Amino acid sequence: VKVRRSTTSSSQDCVERILHDVRTILQECSAQIDFPATLVLAVSGGADSLCMADAVLQLHDNLGLLPIISHLNHGLRGNQSDADAEFVNQFAHQHAVRFVSSRVNVTELSRQEHVSIEVAARKARYRFLAATAQDAGAHLVLLAHNADDQAETVLLRLIRGTGISGLAGMRPISSLAAAYAPNSPSIILVRPLLSVSRSDIELYCESRSLAPRRDSTNDDVHYLRNRVRHELLPLMERYNPGIRTVLTRLAETASSDVDIVNFAARAAYDRLLQAPSPSLEALDRKGWCMLPVGLQRAVLREGVSRVKGAITDLKFAGVEEARAVLNSSARTAEIAILSDVRILVMPDTFRFERLL
Amino acid sequence: VKVRRSTTSSSQDCVERILHDVRTILQECSAQIDFPATLVLAVSGGADSLCMADAVLQLHDNLGLLPIISHLNHGLRGNQSDADAEFVNQFAHQHAVRFVSSRVNVTELSRQEHVSIEVAARKARYRFLAATAQDAGAHLVLLAHNADDQAETVLLRLIRGTGISGLAGMRPISSLAAAYAPNSPSIILVRPLLSVSRSDIELYCESRSLAPRRDSTNDDVHYLRNRVRHELLPLMERYNPGIRTVLTRLAETASSDVDIVNFAARAAYDRLLQAPSPSLEALDRKGWCMLPVGLQRAVLREGVSRVKGAITDLKFAGVEEARAVLNSSARTAEIAILSDVRILVMPDTFRFERLL
Repeated sequence: VKVRRSTTSSSQDCVERILHDVRTILQECSAQIDFPATLVLAVSGGADSLCMADAVLQLHDNLGLLPIISHLNHGLRGNQSDADAEFVNQFAHQHAVRFVSSRVNVTELSRQEHVSIEVAARKARYRFLAATAQDAGAHLVLLAHNADDQAETVLLRLIRGTGISGLAGMRPISSLAAAYAPNSPSIILVRPLLSVSRSDIELYCESRSLAPRRDSTNDDVHYLRNRVRHELLPLMERYNPGIRTVLTRLAETASSDVDIVNFAARAAYDRLLQAPSPSLEALDRKGWCMLPVGLQRAVLREGVSRVKGAITDLKFAGVEEARAVLNSSARTAEIAILSDVRILVMPDTFRFERLL
Repeated sequence: VKVRRSTTSSSQDCVERILHDVRTILQECSAQIDFPATLVLAVSGGADSLCMADAVLQLHDNLGLLPIISHLNHGLRGNQSDADAEFVNQFAHQHAVRFVSSRVNVTELSRQEHVSIEVAARKARYRFLAATAQDAGAHLVLLAHNADDQAETVLLRLIRGTGISGLAGMRPISSLAAAYAPNSPSIILVRPLLSVSRSDIELYCESRSLAPRRDSTNDDVHYLRNRVRHELLPLMERYNPGIRTVLTRLAETASSDVDIVNFAARAAYDRLLQAPSPSLEALDRKGWCMLPVGLQRAVLREGVSRVKGAITDLKFAGVEEARAVLNSSARTAEIAILSDVRILVMPDTFRFERLL
């Protein structure tokens, strides 16, 4: 096994640092949920999730956590997929940890829901994790995304088109979106390795004699993420060897700036609210027109998110179109800002309406 | 001359659209300064600045603007540089417009000020424009940066490491930084072509029979900007053909979000201010500690900017170090957040101090 060593890490330092990171973030969660608590580990069998599982298994007794190892068989790579599932099963068995697994036909799901294989696989994973956590009464779900994944996510979103909320990348602590766990909105998603580089994870595995499985689809440059990993990031690394660090830092600062913007948007929205009745919430149109551009945009996002009941990203063009109408002299208008959300514009007010 | 045609534009549409953009932004400026006004055009002789000058010369009478064409000879390309200067001189003469030029030794300046050739050239340009505007009593300076330049700027800053303020890119309307025009802080920098693509500018030039000069240093991939232009953007364009559009939109939304963050930072700073005396402004430390992370960072940036008298970007590591100290139980500390700015930490307060 060829391990890319990070120049500053001895392997023992690296193990200590990763254990420290995992312990710290799990302790932070105790502010939100009561310990002892059950936690679900998402384990593919690859280096990232094996490292995460190994670290949690060293820490869970002291922290008062009951781990469950879960594995979703995507069935995309035939015998290899089955061998991965069996490998994780064995790992759980050796550590006397409860094992939960399931199998999904991702190709079928992608056809049914008219989404790409990647999107279907992600949906299937989160649904499986939500169901597993609900069945087990767990309030924590741990995912093994690392700092390199974060850098790739930032670039992917940059390429596809995004605002600063997209650049905030994955959050170390978030909630399992309501869509995936409707009956348990309080399930917390934790990514304890989000600031650990892939090379440090490999060093950890070697040092702890873990022998992770290798996912052959990671090398398939057909997927945009893999092209970013194998083509784009190496090119950018030639311009700045620390490119992964600057991207993960950008995610970190963008994320805390997004919190400020969202807070300001909620405050502005509430100020503009004229009628307190939840069935007919109308905003002061003239007051909105006098807001700076950024808050105009943020209030529209906030309004859509409120009627949808979930944070919703909007296309730039749709937001600008709505702004143009609201800022215009048009007395009344109906703006279809999403296929299922419209803005009803009156001379002095406007409101958001969900189409069912 | 090979012109890359944008598929959606007829050449007449393109001329009309650019004239419309230039007229609109100049009219916006009339909110900030009195018309009639003198404006300085920065003209290199390339396609961008020739297009801008041509558009302004068609509009200035109606708008009440008195244009001056300015040209700085960077002296980096020998005879070619002199020929560029002569070309712009001729252009101004043909249009009976006042022409101001100067010559600078950029190589020498880069040695003297220990900066790269690129940075030295930029400094020299802005100093020349500020001096020209001051001498002429002009309140407007026009630069010909286009949408492709904006996309490159966003990527360059991303590569070098930045927060959302860097991703906001260049602003269509800003003020000539105090450093460049100390006696005329009110000089407005305008970039009327910032949302016009390079290909549309080329189409405009062709349609208006302009024959711009070609800057041979644009092809030199030694400069990081040119590597971004010729290597990185084409690669990203293979992932998303609309990459330039998504980057300029990101700049636009990041810019309006930065305004929200800065506004919140100023408000939070003022709330934390204990002593109104300008010589000893001390902030409430406990109040600062209770702010969300984003506002903690933004208040530190705001404090440094206030003592420096100019918006100052800070390194991520320096901000995080300062936050760690301020959030710690340390009763007193001195934090060197910049070489010339320190934070004096007391048990209950802290303040920013400029070292002269």
